[in-house]
Amino acid sequence: MESGVTQPPIGRGPKVRAAVLAATLTELAEVGYAALTVDNVARRAGVHKTTVYRRWADRETLIADALTERVAADIPLPDTGAIDTDLRELARNLTARMTGRIGRIVLTTMLSDAPEITEARRRIFADRILRAAPLVERAVRRGELPADTDPVELIRALAAPIYLRLVVTGEPLTTAAADRAAAAALAAARAGVFVP
Amino acid sequence: MESGVTQPPIGRGPKVRAAVLAATLTELAEVGYAALTVDNVARRAGVHKTTVYRRWADRETLIADALTERVAADIPLPDTGAIDTDLRELARNLTARMTGRIGRIVLTTMLSDAPEITEARRRIFADRILRAAPLVERAVRRGELPADTDPVELIRALAAPIYLRLVVTGEPLTTAAADRAAAAALAAARAGVFVP
Repeated sequence: MESGVTQPPIGRGPKVRAAVLAATLTELAEVGYAALTVDNVARRAGVHKTTVYRRWADRETLIADALTERVAADIPLPDTGAIDTDLRELARNLTARMTGRIGRIVLTTMLSDAPEITEARRRIFADRILRAAPLVERAVRRGELPADTDPVELIRALAAPIYLRLVVTGEPLTTAAADRAAAAALAAARAGVFVP
Repeated sequence: MESGVTQPPIGRGPKVRAAVLAATLTELAEVGYAALTVDNVARRAGVHKTTVYRRWADRETLIADALTERVAADIPLPDTGAIDTDLRELARNLTARMTGRIGRIVLTTMLSDAPEITEARRRIFADRILRAAPLVERAVRRGELPADTDPVELIRALAAPIYLRLVVTGEPLTTAAADRAAAAALAAARAGVFVP
Protein backbone atom coordinates (compact mmCIF):
# COMPACT_ATOMS: atom_id res chain seq x y z
CA MET A 1 0.00 0.00 0.00
CA GLU A 2 1.37 3.46 -0.97
CA SER A 3 1.00 6.36 1.46
CA GLY A 4 -1.56 9.00 0.38
CA VAL A 5 -0.29 12.06 -1.50
CA THR A 6 -2.21 14.55 0.66
CA GLN A 7 -0.26 13.57 3.82
CA PRO A 8 3.46 13.62 4.41
CA PRO A 9 4.93 10.23 3.51
CA ILE A 10 5.09 7.73 6.38
CA GLY A 11 8.57 8.05 7.74
CA ARG A 12 8.67 8.61 11.48
CA GLY A 13 6.80 7.92 14.67
CA PRO A 14 4.75 5.06 16.01
CA LYS A 15 2.64 4.90 12.83
CA VAL A 16 5.66 3.69 10.87
CA ARG A 17 6.43 1.09 13.45
CA ALA A 18 2.86 -0.21 13.43
CA ALA A 19 2.69 -0.21 9.63
CA VAL A 20 5.98 -2.10 9.27
CA LEU A 21 5.07 -4.69 11.93
CA ALA A 22 1.65 -5.27 10.35
CA ALA A 23 3.26 -5.64 6.93
CA THR A 24 5.73 -8.14 8.39
CA LEU A 25 2.91 -10.32 9.75
CA THR A 26 1.08 -10.20 6.42
CA GLU A 27 4.24 -11.19 4.57
CA LEU A 28 4.84 -14.04 7.03
CA ALA A 29 1.30 -15.27 6.41
CA GLU A 30 1.60 -15.00 2.63
CA VAL A 31 5.14 -16.08 1.79
CA GLY A 32 6.37 -17.67 5.03
CA TYR A 33 9.44 -17.16 7.15
CA ALA A 34 12.11 -18.30 4.70
CA ALA A 35 10.94 -16.16 1.76
CA LEU A 36 10.22 -12.95 3.69
CA THR A 37 12.40 -10.02 2.62
CA VAL A 38 12.82 -6.54 4.11
CA ASP A 39 12.30 -5.13 0.59
CA ASN A 40 8.84 -6.62 0.33
CA VAL A 41 7.90 -5.64 3.89
CA ALA A 42 8.97 -2.05 3.16
CA ARG A 43 7.01 -1.96 -0.11
CA ARG A 44 3.90 -3.31 1.58
CA ALA A 45 4.19 -0.82 4.46
CA GLY A 46 4.72 2.08 2.05
CA VAL A 47 8.10 3.05 3.50
CA HIS A 48 11.66 3.04 2.22
CA LYS A 49 13.87 0.09 3.04
CA THR A 50 16.31 2.31 4.91
CA THR A 51 13.46 3.34 7.22
CA VAL A 52 13.10 -0.29 8.22
CA TYR A 53 16.84 -0.77 8.74
CA ARG A 54 16.98 2.39 10.87
CA ARG A 55 14.69 0.71 13.41
CA TRP A 56 15.53 -2.97 13.08
CA ALA A 57 19.05 -4.32 12.77
CA ASP A 58 18.04 -7.21 10.54
CA ARG A 59 15.24 -9.34 9.21
CA GLU A 60 15.24 -11.64 12.28
CA THR A 61 14.85 -8.77 14.75
CA LEU A 62 11.99 -7.40 12.66
CA ILE A 63 10.21 -10.75 12.60
CA ALA A 64 10.74 -11.31 16.31
CA ASP A 65 9.34 -7.84 17.09
CA ALA A 66 6.33 -8.33 14.85
CA LEU A 67 5.49 -11.67 16.43
CA THR A 68 6.20 -10.53 19.98
CA GLU A 69 4.18 -7.31 19.93
CA ARG A 70 1.30 -8.30 17.73
CA VAL A 71 0.89 -11.80 19.07
CA ALA A 72 1.34 -11.35 22.80
CA ALA A 73 -0.80 -8.21 22.77
CA ASP A 74 -3.48 -10.23 21.05
CA ILE A 75 -4.18 -12.55 23.98
CA PRO A 76 -6.54 -10.97 26.53
CA LEU A 77 -5.57 -11.36 30.17
CA PRO A 78 -8.60 -12.39 32.23
CA ASP A 79 -9.42 -10.87 35.62
CA THR A 80 -12.42 -12.79 36.95
CA GLY A 81 -11.48 -12.45 40.62
CA ALA A 82 -10.57 -16.13 41.14
CA ILE A 83 -7.50 -18.07 40.03
CA ASP A 84 -9.35 -21.15 38.73
CA THR A 85 -11.54 -19.19 36.31
CA ASP A 86 -8.66 -16.83 35.43
CA LEU A 87 -6.43 -19.75 34.41
CA ARG A 88 -9.22 -21.48 32.52
CA GLU A 89 -10.00 -18.30 30.56
CA LEU A 90 -6.31 -17.75 29.85
CA ALA A 91 -5.89 -21.30 28.51
CA ARG A 92 -9.00 -20.90 26.35
CA ASN A 93 -7.85 -17.51 25.03
CA LEU A 94 -4.43 -18.89 24.19
CA THR A 95 -6.00 -21.86 22.44
CA ALA A 96 -8.40 -19.66 20.47
CA ARG A 97 -5.65 -17.30 19.35
CA MET A 98 -3.27 -20.07 18.36
CA THR A 99 -5.86 -21.65 16.09
CA GLY A 100 -6.69 -18.34 14.35
CA ARG A 101 -4.79 -16.49 11.60
CA ILE A 102 -2.11 -15.06 13.88
CA GLY A 103 -1.69 -18.45 15.53
CA ARG A 104 -0.99 -20.11 12.22
CA ILE A 105 1.67 -17.52 11.44
CA VAL A 106 3.34 -18.08 14.81
CA LEU A 107 3.17 -21.80 14.35
CA THR A 108 4.69 -21.73 10.88
CA THR A 109 7.49 -19.54 12.16
CA MET A 110 8.03 -21.71 15.21
CA LEU A 111 8.28 -24.82 13.08
CA SER A 112 10.74 -23.25 10.70
CA ASP A 113 14.09 -25.00 10.85
CA ALA A 114 15.96 -21.77 10.17
CA PRO A 115 18.53 -21.51 12.97
CA GLU A 116 18.11 -17.73 13.30
CA ILE A 117 14.52 -18.17 14.42
CA THR A 118 15.54 -19.75 17.72
CA GLU A 119 16.02 -16.42 19.44
CA ALA A 120 12.72 -15.06 18.10
CA ARG A 121 10.93 -18.16 19.34
CA ARG A 122 12.45 -17.76 22.79
CA ARG A 123 11.52 -14.07 22.93
CA ILE A 124 7.93 -14.61 21.80
CA PHE A 125 7.40 -17.23 24.41
CA ALA A 126 9.11 -15.32 27.24
CA ASP A 127 7.13 -12.21 26.38
CA ARG A 128 3.82 -14.04 26.47
CA ILE A 129 4.63 -15.56 29.82
CA LEU A 130 5.65 -12.24 31.36
CA ARG A 131 2.44 -10.58 30.22
CA ALA A 132 0.42 -13.20 32.08
CA ALA A 133 2.42 -12.98 35.32
CA PRO A 134 0.09 -10.37 36.98
CA LEU A 135 -2.72 -12.92 36.93
CA VAL A 136 -0.70 -15.20 39.22
CA GLU A 137 0.53 -12.34 41.39
CA ARG A 138 -3.09 -11.28 42.05
CA ALA A 139 -3.97 -14.84 43.12
CA VAL A 140 -1.02 -14.94 45.52
CA ARG A 141 -2.17 -11.62 47.04
CA ARG A 142 -5.70 -13.02 47.43
CA GLY A 143 -4.22 -16.02 49.28
CA GLU A 144 -5.37 -18.54 46.64
CA LEU A 145 -1.86 -19.81 45.93
CA PRO A 146 1.20 -20.40 48.13
CA ALA A 147 3.28 -17.27 48.74
CA ASP A 148 6.37 -17.15 46.49
CA THR A 149 4.64 -19.11 43.73
CA ASP A 150 6.74 -18.40 40.63
CA PRO A 151 4.36 -16.83 38.06
CA VAL A 152 6.62 -17.73 35.14
CA GLU A 153 6.71 -21.42 36.07
CA LEU A 154 2.95 -21.58 36.55
CA ILE A 155 2.05 -19.93 33.23
CA ARG A 156 4.68 -22.04 31.48
CA ALA A 157 3.08 -25.19 32.90
CA LEU A 158 -0.30 -24.04 31.64
CA ALA A 159 1.05 -23.26 28.18
CA ALA A 160 3.18 -26.41 27.78
CA PRO A 161 0.43 -28.94 26.92
CA ILE A 162 -1.15 -26.45 24.50
CA TYR A 163 2.15 -25.91 22.66
CA LEU A 164 2.78 -29.67 22.73
CA ARG A 165 -0.41 -30.21 20.76
CA LEU A 166 0.34 -27.34 18.40
CA VAL A 167 3.99 -28.04 17.72
CA VAL A 168 4.59 -31.74 18.33
CA THR A 169 1.50 -33.92 18.16
CA GLY A 170 -0.73 -31.84 15.90
CA GLU A 171 -3.81 -32.86 17.88
CA PRO A 172 -6.80 -30.49 17.89
CA LEU A 173 -6.84 -27.74 20.50
CA THR A 174 -10.17 -28.51 22.10
CA THR A 175 -11.79 -26.64 24.99
CA ALA A 176 -11.40 -29.82 27.06
CA ALA A 177 -7.64 -29.79 26.41
CA ALA A 178 -7.41 -26.12 27.40
CA ASP A 179 -9.40 -26.71 30.59
CA ARG A 180 -7.25 -29.73 31.50
CA ALA A 181 -4.07 -27.68 30.98
CA ALA A 182 -5.42 -24.98 33.32
CA ALA A 183 -6.58 -27.50 35.95
CA ALA A 184 -3.24 -29.35 35.92
CA ALA A 185 -1.24 -26.14 36.32
CA LEU A 186 -3.52 -25.00 39.16
CA ALA A 187 -3.26 -28.33 41.05
CA ALA A 188 0.54 -28.24 40.75
CA ALA A 189 0.62 -24.61 41.95
CA ARG A 190 -1.58 -25.40 44.95
CA ALA A 191 0.70 -28.31 45.84
CA GLY A 192 3.61 -25.84 45.94
CA VAL A 193 5.45 -27.23 42.89
CA PHE A 194 6.18 -23.71 41.60
CA VAL A 195 7.60 -22.37 44.85
CA PRO A 196 11.39 -22.26 44.25
CA MET B 1 28.99 -50.48 4.23
CA GLU B 2 28.92 -53.50 1.85
CA SER B 3 27.84 -56.91 3.17
CA GLY B 4 30.66 -59.44 3.54
CA VAL B 5 31.31 -61.85 0.64
CA THR B 6 31.54 -64.94 2.88
CA GLN B 7 27.93 -64.57 4.09
CA PRO B 8 24.76 -64.44 2.00
CA PRO B 9 23.95 -60.81 1.23
CA ILE B 10 21.72 -59.13 3.78
CA GLY B 11 18.24 -59.35 2.28
CA ARG B 12 15.69 -60.81 4.67
CA GLY B 13 14.84 -61.12 8.32
CA PRO B 14 15.11 -58.85 11.33
CA LYS B 15 18.81 -58.16 10.65
CA VAL B 16 17.89 -56.25 7.51
CA ARG B 17 15.28 -54.28 9.36
CA ALA B 18 17.72 -53.35 12.12
CA ALA B 19 20.48 -52.46 9.62
CA VAL B 20 18.18 -50.23 7.57
CA LEU B 21 16.74 -48.45 10.62
CA ALA B 22 20.23 -47.84 12.04
CA ALA B 23 21.40 -46.51 8.66
CA THR B 24 18.37 -44.20 8.55
CA LEU B 25 19.24 -42.70 11.94
CA THR B 26 22.85 -42.19 10.91
CA GLU B 27 21.78 -40.48 7.68
CA LEU B 28 19.37 -38.26 9.64
CA ALA B 29 22.21 -37.27 11.95
CA GLU B 30 24.63 -36.61 9.09
CA VAL B 31 22.58 -35.02 6.33
CA GLY B 32 19.29 -34.13 8.06
CA TYR B 33 15.69 -34.83 7.27
CA ALA B 34 15.33 -32.90 4.02
CA ALA B 35 18.41 -34.39 2.32
CA LEU B 36 17.91 -38.02 3.38
CA THR B 37 17.37 -40.38 0.43
CA VAL B 38 16.38 -44.07 0.36
CA ASP B 39 19.31 -44.65 -2.04
CA ASN B 40 21.83 -43.47 0.53
CA VAL B 41 20.16 -45.35 3.38
CA ALA B 42 20.25 -48.57 1.30
CA ARG B 43 23.90 -48.05 0.38
CA ARG B 44 24.85 -47.45 4.02
CA ALA B 45 22.90 -50.50 5.20
CA GLY B 46 24.47 -52.70 2.49
CA VAL B 47 21.12 -53.64 0.92
CA HIS B 48 19.47 -52.98 -2.40
CA LYS B 49 17.01 -50.10 -2.66
CA THR B 50 14.19 -52.48 -3.60
CA THR B 51 14.77 -54.30 -0.30
CA VAL B 52 13.97 -51.06 1.50
CA TYR B 53 10.89 -50.37 -0.61
CA ARG B 54 9.62 -53.91 -0.01
CA ARG B 55 9.36 -53.09 3.72
CA TRP B 56 8.63 -49.36 3.77
CA ALA B 57 6.16 -47.68 1.45
CA ASP B 58 8.13 -44.46 1.31
CA ARG B 59 10.85 -42.34 2.85
CA GLU B 60 8.53 -40.84 5.48
CA THR B 61 7.38 -44.24 6.75
CA LEU B 62 11.00 -45.35 6.97
CA ILE B 63 12.00 -42.27 8.96
CA ALA B 64 9.00 -42.54 11.25
CA ASP B 65 9.79 -46.22 11.93
CA ALA B 66 13.45 -45.50 12.61
CA LEU B 67 12.65 -42.73 15.06
CA THR B 68 9.78 -44.59 16.73
CA GLU B 69 11.59 -47.88 17.33
CA ARG B 70 15.05 -46.65 18.07
CA VAL B 71 14.03 -43.64 20.08
CA ALA B 72 11.18 -44.91 22.21
CA ALA B 73 13.05 -48.13 22.96
CA ASP B 74 15.94 -46.03 24.09
CA ILE B 75 14.19 -44.53 27.13
CA PRO B 76 14.25 -46.90 30.12
CA LEU B 77 10.98 -47.29 32.01
CA PRO B 78 11.63 -47.06 35.76
CA ASP B 79 9.99 -49.41 38.27
CA THR B 80 11.03 -48.13 41.71
CA GLY B 81 7.85 -49.22 43.49
CA ALA B 82 6.50 -45.71 44.07
CA ILE B 83 4.89 -43.27 41.64
CA ASP B 84 6.81 -40.18 42.75
CA THR B 85 10.25 -41.73 42.18
CA ASP B 86 9.03 -43.51 39.01
CA LEU B 87 7.86 -40.23 37.46
CA ARG B 88 10.99 -38.39 38.51
CA GLU B 89 13.22 -41.09 36.96
CA LEU B 90 11.12 -41.09 33.79
CA ALA B 91 11.41 -37.31 33.44
CA ARG B 92 15.17 -37.50 34.03
CA ASN B 93 15.59 -40.36 31.53
CA LEU B 94 13.60 -38.49 28.91
CA THR B 95 15.65 -35.37 29.51
CA ALA B 96 18.94 -37.26 29.31
CA ARG B 97 18.00 -39.02 26.08
CA MET B 98 16.71 -35.88 24.41
CA THR B 99 19.98 -34.08 25.03
CA GLY B 100 22.10 -36.94 23.64
CA ARG B 101 22.85 -37.87 20.01
CA ILE B 102 19.49 -39.54 19.36
CA GLY B 103 17.70 -36.63 21.00
CA ARG B 104 19.36 -34.18 18.65
CA ILE B 105 18.23 -36.24 15.66
CA VAL B 106 14.66 -36.34 16.94
CA LEU B 107 14.74 -32.63 17.62
CA THR B 108 16.05 -31.75 14.18
CA THR B 109 13.39 -33.90 12.61
CA MET B 110 10.68 -32.46 14.83
CA LEU B 111 11.68 -28.93 13.95
CA SER B 112 11.71 -29.66 10.24
CA ASP B 113 9.05 -27.68 8.42
CA ALA B 114 8.50 -30.47 5.89
CA PRO B 115 4.75 -31.14 5.97
CA GLU B 116 5.20 -34.90 5.60
CA ILE B 117 6.93 -35.08 8.95
CA THR B 118 3.74 -34.23 10.85
CA GLU B 119 2.54 -37.82 10.90
CA ALA B 120 5.96 -39.14 11.98
CA ARG B 121 6.08 -36.60 14.79
CA ARG B 122 2.64 -37.65 15.98
CA ARG B 123 3.58 -41.35 15.84
CA ILE B 124 6.86 -40.91 17.71
CA PHE B 125 5.18 -39.03 20.48
CA ALA B 126 2.17 -41.37 20.77
CA ASP B 127 4.49 -44.37 20.82
CA ARG B 128 6.61 -42.94 23.62
CA ILE B 129 3.56 -42.16 25.70
CA LEU B 130 2.09 -45.65 25.25
CA ARG B 131 5.34 -47.30 26.31
CA ALA B 132 5.22 -45.38 29.60
CA ALA B 133 1.57 -46.15 30.37
CA PRO B 134 2.33 -49.29 32.50
CA LEU B 135 4.12 -47.07 35.01
CA VAL B 136 0.86 -45.20 35.71
CA GLU B 137 -1.23 -48.37 35.67
CA ARG B 138 0.97 -49.89 38.38
CA ALA B 139 0.52 -46.78 40.55
CA VAL B 140 -3.26 -46.96 40.15
CA ARG B 141 -3.17 -50.63 41.21
CA ARG B 142 -1.07 -49.70 44.26
CA GLY B 143 -3.70 -47.10 45.19
CA GLU B 144 -1.28 -44.17 44.78
CA LEU B 145 -3.40 -42.43 42.16
CA PRO B 146 -7.17 -42.07 41.67
CA ALA B 147 -8.77 -45.05 39.91
CA ASP B 148 -9.40 -44.34 36.21
CA THR B 149 -6.43 -41.95 35.98
CA ASP B 150 -5.73 -41.73 32.25
CA PRO B 151 -2.08 -42.86 31.79
CA VAL B 152 -1.76 -41.09 28.44
CA GLU B 153 -2.83 -37.74 29.87
CA LEU B 154 -0.50 -38.05 32.85
CA ILE B 155 2.61 -38.96 30.82
CA ARG B 156 1.76 -36.26 28.30
CA ALA B 157 1.61 -33.69 31.12
CA LEU B 158 5.02 -34.84 32.32
CA ALA B 159 6.53 -34.65 28.84
CA ALA B 160 4.96 -31.31 27.84
CA PRO B 161 7.29 -28.93 29.75
CA ILE B 162 10.33 -30.92 28.60
CA TYR B 163 9.31 -30.70 24.94
CA LEU B 164 8.45 -27.04 25.42
CA ARG B 165 12.05 -26.35 26.42
CA LEU B 166 13.43 -28.49 23.62
CA VAL B 167 11.23 -27.32 20.79
CA VAL B 168 10.02 -23.82 21.66
CA THR B 169 12.12 -21.96 24.20
CA GLY B 170 15.49 -23.66 23.72
CA GLU B 171 16.23 -23.43 27.45
CA PRO B 172 18.56 -26.03 28.97
CA LEU B 173 17.03 -29.30 30.12
CA THR B 174 18.22 -29.25 33.71
CA THR B 175 17.55 -31.89 36.35
CA ALA B 176 15.54 -29.26 38.24
CA ALA B 177 13.32 -28.75 35.20
CA ALA B 178 12.81 -32.53 34.84
CA ASP B 179 11.96 -32.89 38.54
CA ARG B 180 9.50 -29.99 38.39
CA ALA B 181 7.79 -31.52 35.35
CA ALA B 182 7.40 -34.81 37.25
CA ALA B 183 6.16 -33.11 40.43
CA ALA B 184 3.62 -30.99 38.53
CA ALA B 185 2.21 -34.00 36.66
CA LEU B 186 1.97 -35.97 39.91
CA ALA B 187 0.18 -33.16 41.79
CA ALA B 188 -2.33 -32.82 38.94
CA ALA B 189 -2.87 -36.60 38.85
CA ARG B 190 -3.45 -36.75 42.61
CA ALA B 191 -5.99 -33.93 42.30
CA GLY B 192 -7.89 -36.06 39.78
CA VAL B 193 -7.23 -33.83 36.76
CA PHE B 194 -6.50 -36.86 34.55
CA VAL B 195 -9.67 -38.79 35.46
CA PRO B 196 -11.93 -38.40 32.40
